[in-house]
Amino acid sequence: MPDHNSISSKAVGRLSLYRRLANEFRNTGVEHVYSHTLAAEGVTTPAQVRRDLMLLGCSGTPAKGYSVDELIESLNTFFGVDEVQRIALAGVGNLGRALLAYFPARRPNAKILASFDCDPTKRGRVIMGCRCYDIEHISNVIDEMDISMGIIAVPAEAANEIADHFVAAGIRGILNFAPVPLKINDRVHVESMDITMMLDKVVYFVREESHEQDSSS
Amino acid sequence: MPDHNSISSKAVGRLSLYRRLANEFRNTGVEHVYSHTLAAEGVTTPAQVRRDLMLLGCSGTPAKGYSVDELIESLNTFFGVDEVQRIALAGVGNLGRALLAYFPARRPNAKILASFDCDPTKRGRVIMGCRCYDIEHISNVIDEMDISMGIIAVPAEAANEIADHFVAAGIRGILNFAPVPLKINDRVHVESMDITMMLDKVVYFVREESHEQDSSS
Repeated sequence: MPDHNSISSKAVGRLSLYRRLANEFRNTGVEHVYSHTLAAEGVTTPAQVRRDLMLLGCSGTPAKGYSVDELIESLNTFFGVDEVQRIALAGVGNLGRALLAYFPARRPNAKILASFDCDPTKRGRVIMGCRCYDIEHISNVIDEMDISMGIIAVPAEAANEIADHFVAAGIRGILNFAPVPLKINDRVHVESMDITMMLDKVVYFVREESHEQDSSS
Repeated sequence: MPDHNSISSKAVGRLSLYRRLANEFRNTGVEHVYSHTLAAEGVTTPAQVRRDLMLLGCSGTPAKGYSVDELIESLNTFFGVDEVQRIALAGVGNLGRALLAYFPARRPNAKILASFDCDPTKRGRVIMGCRCYDIEHISNVIDEMDISMGIIAVPAEAANEIADHFVAAGIRGILNFAPVPLKINDRVHVESMDITMMLDKVVYFVREESHEQDSSS
């Protein structure tokens, strides 16, 4: 068993990508794949691919590369894809609804079992197949349903309060879509996606590029 | 005028966050803010905040910190918030619809003017206030509407083809939600958000932590 403690978040991200690519290769009948092919698809280097896969104990041969089936098996074990992930969602606005619709097709074992919203008209309703509860009951529901992961899709000003509720209820990993860094002291893994910040970045670099063109013409 | 060429994508992200925080401070009547307050909210260091704001020519005083109004003015100029951003969206599924609903409230000047989808039942319809066009017309529509940014919310297998269409049509910045790296040679700024990869990371670290607990108990 490799020492997974040493694996960085970035490396886990690349392994997730290799798994998707390997499944695509299998679906098109490809049996072996070279590190340079994975590297080209994954926009990284062949040496990086080999180092990443070495963490899983996977090694290819110079002649044929990696066996796609073995790669998928190792990566499935690494990500525990046969295990069900029990997830709670905070915020059932447009983004929350999109996530409820998004995951079942892409990660069938990632089950969003409960949602929470401060809007009283949503409470008790089943929205996109998931029952919505009052935020007051967050701790009971998470405990009773044995939920270990939380998704935050509430506005910025409510995000840290929700994160505190999640942590107090025993949640150990959070996917945060609120445009605010979470201040959590406990040993909880957080991945954040700030969509407006990403948009700001694209806007900034597009504007910069047009200013450069203006000044050079 | 500072030399913006040297500003990294990460620094631009932090500046976007400071802008949001400064607006929040102003809304609650705060007139001055210290670098260590911004650092605590932004989960970075006071020295980093000062370096970032120096790029904009902003400097605070040890006694009072930064003027919130001046900060907002500098950051608004930096991000060109008075300018309208003309955006196209590829993919009007659940995620695409969520984005159409998400941006107007948060970035009123980010206008998604046209959407594209391969589903013939969506073509010609106005979905969430935005007309949906056939992908065949992507180049004409982007040209006629003078669109400079694209958002990709299509499945992985279609993402690179869409990106090629966007680049060929003259788009200079892309926000990519497809779970695949874009292979673009041209001088186009790309920001990618792979939601399933983020979920995989949270799942991995939550599983790892429970294994550690199991083996130490």
